[in-house]
Amino acid sequence: MSGKNPALPIKDHRFLIVGGASLVGSTTADEFLRRGAKEVVLLDNFSFGSKDAIKHLEGNPRVRVVQGDVMRLHELLKAFEGVDGVLHLAAMMTISMDRDPWAGLDVNIRGAQNVIEAARTNGVKKLVFASSNAVYGYGPGVAGDLVESTPFNSVGAPPAAILYGASKIVGEQLCRDAYRRYGLDYVVLRYSTVYGERQHYRAANALYIIETHDRIKAGERPRVIGDGSESKHFVYVGDVARANAAAFEAKATDVQVNVSGPAPTTTLELVQMVCEATGSDLKPEHVEPPAGKVRLTSGGAFKIDHTAAGKAIGWKPEVDMREGIRRLIEWRDETGA
Amino acid sequence: MSGKNPALPIKDHRFLIVGGASLVGSTTADEFLRRGAKEVVLLDNFSFGSKDAIKHLEGNPRVRVVQGDVMRLHELLKAFEGVDGVLHLAAMMTISMDRDPWAGLDVNIRGAQNVIEAARTNGVKKLVFASSNAVYGYGPGVAGDLVESTPFNSVGAPPAAILYGASKIVGEQLCRDAYRRYGLDYVVLRYSTVYGERQHYRAANALYIIETHDRIKAGERPRVIGDGSESKHFVYVGDVARANAAAFEAKATDVQVNVSGPAPTTTLELVQMVCEATGSDLKPEHVEPPAGKVRLTSGGAFKIDHTAAGKAIGWKPEVDMREGIRRLIEWRDETGA
Repeated sequence: MSGKNPALPIKDHRFLIVGGASLVGSTTADEFLRRGAKEVVLLDNFSFGSKDAIKHLEGNPRVRVVQGDVMRLHELLKAFEGVDGVLHLAAMMTISMDRDPWAGLDVNIRGAQNVIEAARTNGVKKLVFASSNAVYGYGPGVAGDLVESTPFNSVGAPPAAILYGASKIVGEQLCRDAYRRYGLDYVVLRYSTVYGERQHYRAANALYIIETHDRIKAGERPRVIGDGSESKHFVYVGDVARANAAAFEAKATDVQVNVSGPAPTTTLELVQMVCEATGSDLKPEHVEPPAGKVRLTSGGAFKIDHTAAGKAIGWKPEVDMREGIRRLIEWRDETGA
Repeated sequence: MSGKNPALPIKDHRFLIVGGASLVGSTTADEFLRRGAKEVVLLDNFSFGSKDAIKHLEGNPRVRVVQGDVMRLHELLKAFEGVDGVLHLAAMMTISMDRDPWAGLDVNIRGAQNVIEAARTNGVKKLVFASSNAVYGYGPGVAGDLVESTPFNSVGAPPAAILYGASKIVGEQLCRDAYRRYGLDYVVLRYSTVYGERQHYRAANALYIIETHDRIKAGERPRVIGDGSESKHFVYVGDVARANAAAFEAKATDVQVNVSGPAPTTTLELVQMVCEATGSDLKPEHVEPPAGKVRLTSGGAFKIDHTAAGKAIGWKPEVDMREGIRRLIEWRDETGA
């Protein structure tokens, strides 16, 4: 748009991660440090993010932790000073949105507005916005190959899930608007469900995996909701961190792409993989979905296509589910998480 | 949900219209008064609504005008005291959303949150929320019969249009959430493009009609953008007012239905109807879409189906385009608008 080159190398540049004390944030910080970032600033309000997730970065002279909240524009304005690239991760997901939709919309929409405002005001060179496959919606309408032009389906989905998806659609469009209005370069990454080391119980991402692991550890049969044929398409957190780096480093701007793992699984396959990784011979039991809990069910089988990410930012996932689950379980066993 | 009857007769009850000094608001006030409402409170901040639109109600003992803003919860809390039913119309549409997306999202999302909060706090019996066919999106994906389960298409649409549509999706889901959480009865009406007497230049609704009329009055050939085959599905404001009344009076709750005119037209037919109604023999000229202006183009031919409204609230449109245009032009000629 402005004729400038939207590629922003990680090496020797300063990055700020909004929602940095998270699963994705902390892993991305590792990736950015590995690629030679001059500085990585982790901004978090620690309501959802955790000090544990970034403990391993303590004392690193290239890491700075800033306590700040996306709802307070002045904190972002100050924290973004001198920053080259901003990765915006902070959001409330469906479970929090269900608990308090007002707060969820504040964080996801006002939060995105504040991040964009602070980025353009401070002359940030590029913004990477963490969106979600929730922009394709939920329910039986979500089937087949989900590509970037797939519409938002919401029939039969709970309000919180639709609100979450809509809030991500809004965030994406605020980026597009800022690009048109101010020339702010950006890449939107639509993450599928993220799992991996440092995963915890506070987010819905890949709860199945750690719930199954915990049951096996307790000697209980793992549970599969329904017949287990439901599609899940996860992505390993290390692959997400690489996608974040690639989004900054690529020439791409004003684009939205999917970030998903090598292939979808069913919930039954997933539980079987966890059994395999733990060496358990417990057989899964099939149960009814728990009442009164927001759990998202997919209708038909679907696959989140990441071909466009390959073209736009030269990224594809490297870690398959079996390997990713092995790493997650190894980490949990080692850390007692 | 609560076992109570969600039907709320207009007669002998008190209604408040948020955004009351508008095309739809003022016409609905007339309809409610005709049906014997005990009181109609018109709340408006008059930034967009106009005193002219409600001048004819001045001095009516059953009408009260309250200056208030949806962004100020305390003003709504006070205004909603003793009110039986609330019709929430206040919103920024695509043109305003393009001018200032931050303000537009505030009004459409925080505004809806505040209206719902004030309604449930004051024990309002029923809320009618004005949504839009914008929840089906824009662009070539929007084709064929648009029914209530049609997904949100946004490929190729300008950010402001997508933001507007998403903000209406959010508003609808906030209603669903409030019904589940607090038992607040509601009906969502998805208006198609509204036209009729008291229409003005400030909103995008049906600009084609009055632009065409003004050109004819000035002796200029009316303009058709492109080949004129683009679909438009309008609804006459008097029919919308009847739908608003029917939504309160019906037993329906927790439902979303389309409110559209008898049939769609093309832009070319529309311009021809205006020529006919004015007795003009000027021939339309075909022009390119103006650059840099947010104007929404539909891709394929579409029709907004209002069958569900018939079933849920016993409503169907009565005024066809030819008659509606005749009334609008008569009103403009009489008032010099």
